[in-house]
Amino acid sequence: MAFPLISIIGTGNLAQHLSRNFENCGLRIAELYGRNLQKAKAITSKLYDARVTSDLDFSDSEASLFFLCVSDEAIADIADELVLPKGSVLVHCSGATPLEAIARDGAAYGVFYPLQTFTASRKVSFEGLPVCLEASTDEAELLLEKIAIKLRALPYFMSSEQRLCLHLSAVFACNFTNHFYRISKDILQDQGLPFQLLKHLIEETARKTFDLGPENAQTGPALRSDNATMQKHLSLLGNHEEWKALYQKISSDIQAKNYQV
Amino acid sequence: MAFPLISIIGTGNLAQHLSRNFENCGLRIAELYGRNLQKAKAITSKLYDARVTSDLDFSDSEASLFFLCVSDEAIADIADELVLPKGSVLVHCSGATPLEAIARDGAAYGVFYPLQTFTASRKVSFEGLPVCLEASTDEAELLLEKIAIKLRALPYFMSSEQRLCLHLSAVFACNFTNHFYRISKDILQDQGLPFQLLKHLIEETARKTFDLGPENAQTGPALRSDNATMQKHLSLLGNHEEWKALYQKISSDIQAKNYQV
Repeated sequence: MAFPLISIIGTGNLAQHLSRNFENCGLRIAELYGRNLQKAKAITSKLYDARVTSDLDFSDSEASLFFLCVSDEAIADIADELVLPKGSVLVHCSGATPLEAIARDGAAYGVFYPLQTFTASRKVSFEGLPVCLEASTDEAELLLEKIAIKLRALPYFMSSEQRLCLHLSAVFACNFTNHFYRISKDILQDQGLPFQLLKHLIEETARKTFDLGPENAQTGPALRSDNATMQKHLSLLGNHEEWKALYQKISSDIQAKNYQV
Repeated sequence: MAFPLISIIGTGNLAQHLSRNFENCGLRIAELYGRNLQKAKAITSKLYDARVTSDLDFSDSEASLFFLCVSDEAIADIADELVLPKGSVLVHCSGATPLEAIARDGAAYGVFYPLQTFTASRKVSFEGLPVCLEASTDEAELLLEKIAIKLRALPYFMSSEQRLCLHLSAVFACNFTNHFYRISKDILQDQGLPFQLLKHLIEETARKTFDLGPENAQTGPALRSDNATMQKHLSLLGNHEEWKALYQKISSDIQAKNYQV
């Protein structure tokens, strides 16, 4: 299959990681759009020969596949302003935005949502990564599937509602989890202890939850209803009312759930 | 250094994992105590020639190092009942129990707390694992350090208060995190989606937090103050009041914290 030339709209973490991964697997980037040309140039400097533009009129572009890598709030507005060559496919990359937010008369559109946490300074591989796909036409679906496979990612077709639920579950599993790592680090720092002490524990927790299922992997004082230990923990947290509230709320949740022991 | 014979008091996950790891690195288990002889025999059946006992009088034992692997609530009571050979060292393995809970007149005592989550069905390696040590005498300290090194673990001397704080931070980083994995799985199951979809995300979150530090690794709608997405998530959680409350509380915490972006 011949792959179309691609243009990327946006200069954030996803634009950066997606464009590099596209080129690494042999796809070609024609243009990169950014309001901030400095940021756009910083990204294209790592690409083969992508042109920088701050104009949303792509009527003369050689690309026919356009990836919207902008913040969720900006997706619909930018999609409205975009002028694309006839026969192009427009794609957004958001977990929380319905496919129809970028609906266009007489043109194909789709969703390409890679389920990963992207940070500027950190290389991310798409190999084996689930990419959630949805599209307005069978041809656009097939194209997105081929792109995902070209990236060695795992294509996964789902509805906008399923994708939003997946996005919500990812917030618990990633963003909230990382916030708890932060709280752990703060507690340790107060005692002059390094966060590194928790590395084996955190890695084993992440591995174990998939090997056994989280319902079989739970341990700790809340599960055992070890009230003496929980009281000691709460009194250590005495000055941090917000952490105390979280500790109590999550411990009750754990006790209310039907965990295997 | 000649290592003493060891006896283990208890038949839980830690007793099982510790005794097997001791033997795997060349240490010898003399006896295993359990009130439930069936459970004790299940453990000793995997050991070289450890004797099972349900008697806390060890005055005739050849062991001189005794590991208390019982629930935190039982530690002090069982330590009181134990009769040990002269010159023995008694050790507990709890993160949340002070050293002094097992203080004995004229005898050495210590703490050996491996910072890991132990589940019956899952093999755990002690290689590189931090083991928190504390002891009443220099000789007992040295002995526990040698035992940790023999296990290829990472010995780490700290006070009872530091250990309790470390235990608290481990509850956030492991138990609460696993509970969030459970919530994620429940949200996905409602949509007919497999938990496995989150594997790359969860693994990358655990790796990234150590490579960048959790304060630099945070992402997501709360950090970006993306209120539209947060409102969509909250309405998806409509029927789960407890998850909604957690979502709001943790999102505000994330917004109040000074994260790098």
